[in-house]
Amino acid sequence: MTEAQDERVADLERRFRQGDPRALARALTLVESGHPWGQALLKRLRGQGQAKVVGITGSPGAGKSTLTDRLILEARKRGERVGVLAVDPSSPFTGGAILGDRIRMMRHHQDPGVFIRSMASRGALGGLAGATVAALSLLEAFGFQRIFVETVGVGQSEVDIARVADTTLLVLTPAAGDAVQAFKAGVMEIADIFAVNKFDLPGGERLIQELKGALELSPPRPGGWRPPIYPTVAATGEGVEALFEGLEAHHRHLKEHGLLEAHRLERTRFEVESVIQEWGRRRTQAAEDLVARVARGELTPEEAAWSLLRPEA
Amino acid sequence: MTEAQDERVADLERRFRQGDPRALARALTLVESGHPWGQALLKRLRGQGQAKVVGITGSPGAGKSTLTDRLILEARKRGERVGVLAVDPSSPFTGGAILGDRIRMMRHHQDPGVFIRSMASRGALGGLAGATVAALSLLEAFGFQRIFVETVGVGQSEVDIARVADTTLLVLTPAAGDAVQAFKAGVMEIADIFAVNKFDLPGGERLIQELKGALELSPPRPGGWRPPIYPTVAATGEGVEALFEGLEAHHRHLKEHGLLEAHRLERTRFEVESVIQEWGRRRTQAAEDLVARVARGELTPEEAAWSLLRPEA
Repeated sequence: MTEAQDERVADLERRFRQGDPRALARALTLVESGHPWGQALLKRLRGQGQAKVVGITGSPGAGKSTLTDRLILEARKRGERVGVLAVDPSSPFTGGAILGDRIRMMRHHQDPGVFIRSMASRGALGGLAGATVAALSLLEAFGFQRIFVETVGVGQSEVDIARVADTTLLVLTPAAGDAVQAFKAGVMEIADIFAVNKFDLPGGERLIQELKGALELSPPRPGGWRPPIYPTVAATGEGVEALFEGLEAHHRHLKEHGLLEAHRLERTRFEVESVIQEWGRRRTQAAEDLVARVARGELTPEEAAWSLLRPEA
Repeated sequence: MTEAQDERVADLERRFRQGDPRALARALTLVESGHPWGQALLKRLRGQGQAKVVGITGSPGAGKSTLTDRLILEARKRGERVGVLAVDPSSPFTGGAILGDRIRMMRHHQDPGVFIRSMASRGALGGLAGATVAALSLLEAFGFQRIFVETVGVGQSEVDIARVADTTLLVLTPAAGDAVQAFKAGVMEIADIFAVNKFDLPGGERLIQELKGALELSPPRPGGWRPPIYPTVAATGEGVEALFEGLEAHHRHLKEHGLLEAHRLERTRFEVESVIQEWGRRRTQAAEDLVARVARGELTPEEAAWSLLRPEA
């Protein structure tokens, strides 16, 4: 970077540290687009601040956004400054707006203690993008005490979010098939806390019993944590305070058992792996001849991978 | 490898080339477990043979296994030798056996023209494992003319299967939420052919209309392919012959438009990327200190990734 560019990054960093939300928004854009200034900023800001990071996942239509909206209010009641990353493509935050929830979210735009950011894309390979974790680092450095990461439940994203968040909340509904999907897809094991949302629909109590049965069969979590199940009606706010207390209880559990640091390292591991994965993808895409030689059986995939990753490559 | 080992690999290869199914089974085990003999065999056998590769995906409970069973029969009627890879953890092929379908599948064990193999695990990162593609290469080298790859629809696996198969078949049912899930998860775009299975249930015709509506809005596929929709009742076999004709039509389309080679290259690309991804994962897991330095902000993830991938690392 030129000296003038260095100065502009330094200026952005200064405004960021002063708490200017426009500087945060700009920094996030730079990071998300892979701009070198974003990298430079991250290098200066990473590892500062520490938020309680809650991943919120579940099927489309489970009411994740409405529930997130309610959880933001709970956090604000307690005086927490709140950052939200929405990486769910069907979320009203990210522009899906299928359910018209967008207007409801708008109220937070009046609140300087809440910052909502939608991430345009999932990772190149379907899961959570490495850029999402970089964005998380920026939100932490900005000083948010609570960060919600909303992601849609389509397999890989759920596995990823559990690696990135301190606490993973799985939102289910009594709608037919929701529980079956969760059981079969192996998502049960990644959730620290369950919300049975739209609990006013028929079948809510049965779903809770099914979940309890399944949880009794699943292996114990680190430190002996037993995932609790909360009935909620996000639309009215019913049960949300208790759910928030559940999030707090899980955070205390992590702290008391020295597990917070392990979570932080796992998140970093995810980020490093994402970088390698993305490099692999880009270099493989660009190496038409090499790939053709593997397809013809002249090279093994391992030999091709090796030559793609040599520093001189 | 020692000379004696070389000889045993050569012997295995000889039996493989003679068409001994036990040699194929052994080769698959070696490849799946990452054994060096498996690599040696793959190096000798990769790129030989060419099957019509059909990926079959969809939600748990959509009836994928029963439909696969019926499609095997259709292929056998036409004299094709058929290989099946089941990477769906909920499939009766792989040991899920939830629906008791396993017995139905057993009939193929009497048929030397059918080889069924379950893959114990999905990829380390949730999607299809690179080993699945290696297994596919072995099945092709063994001379199967048709290969079905059954995978459960949980996001990443579906995206992966579309990269690996020539033709991707998405199995939906009129059950509530199935179509919504497909629309929202972006799976619509990866399917070449749709089966509305359990068409005898209420809502089948409506689902077809919904799919048609959604497909009209989606971008045209390579070569102008318009994904057809087939109503099926796998339990009785109704509609399966027409569906099989649909698979054939898609294959002809690929051939006529010179797209088969592109599919083959994309599959190889996936395999090379999987190798890199797996290396990245293993090396990152092993590099505790490096990851801790990134978490503390002393290194960027890019710098850590770089030092992990140096050949001397």
